[in-house]
Amino acid sequence: MTETDFMRYAIELSRRKMQEIGAAPFAAVIVRDGEIVGEGVNTVLADHDPTLHGEVAAIRDACKRLGTFDLSGCDIYTSCEPCEMCVAAIWWARLDRVFYANALADTNHLMPIDGLTQDIRRPIGERSAPARQLLAKEAFDVIKQWVDSGEAAKLMTRPERRL
Amino acid sequence: MTETDFMRYAIELSRRKMQEIGAAPFAAVIVRDGEIVGEGVNTVLADHDPTLHGEVAAIRDACKRLGTFDLSGCDIYTSCEPCEMCVAAIWWARLDRVFYANALADTNHLMPIDGLTQDIRRPIGERSAPARQLLAKEAFDVIKQWVDSGEAAKLMTRPERRL
Repeated sequence: MTETDFMRYAIELSRRKMQEIGAAPFAAVIVRDGEIVGEGVNTVLADHDPTLHGEVAAIRDACKRLGTFDLSGCDIYTSCEPCEMCVAAIWWARLDRVFYANALADTNHLMPIDGLTQDIRRPIGERSAPARQLLAKEAFDVIKQWVDSGEAAKLMTRPERRL
Repeated sequence: MTETDFMRYAIELSRRKMQEIGAAPFAAVIVRDGEIVGEGVNTVLADHDPTLHGEVAAIRDACKRLGTFDLSGCDIYTSCEPCEMCVAAIWWARLDRVFYANALADTNHLMPIDGLTQDIRRPIGERSAPARQLLAKEAFDVIKQWVDSGEAAKLMTRPERRL
């Protein structure tokens, strides 16, 4: 399958799931070495999960199948340019490349997410949800203990990007 | 319970889960009308899920318990200032307020996420993972059909913020 084939598959998945289960038509597939190793569609409404965007669902599926949280060496094909949550999920999952169909600039008049785009660029004290800091010292002691134990390195050390 | 009590609970949860199951010590609780309605801890490693940060886990737990993807009227208490994925998850979940303990500015030398913070502020073509657009027209037709059906409004229409 070519890059275009994988994208066509993602778009068809979004259309099919919209028709079959009323999913929001945002789907993604994860590809490694020319094979689909994960796929997902936006089931926020059906699953009562605001984090279940197509990209997140596909990442979870691939991680489950491959038995790792680290998708280095894999690409994602998504039927719509990822929102900020999914950009960050892609970063944490360490995906190599991102192929997208719809651009957010072209869909924003139909489904605006300017509020999110603005929020994420602001410091925590200036976002739409008011924020307040509490008990910083107590929490820092726990993080420090974790980092000193060497455990933090398992999550935070990123391999060299292959590309 | 006071705001400080909820935060202390979240920090203790992070410490306990770190000791019991080797979780990364990032925990969050969701509170509505003075009651805890959801809680979660970072189990990225144990669950092979790079999206399972404490905030995402707590949001999923609260949504499951309450049977909705919309947590308007709820607050989140998190043992660490949310990363960009979690800021966006909080936005999509429509949480009212954010209480946090550790500030990212204080933990970043121990667990740097500058790469993410920079990526998310850049246009898609300038991020660390190379990106390419394919089949925009095909994908737009599906989104348009969804929006025209009226289904999109269920996800995209946000209630007035109560605060």
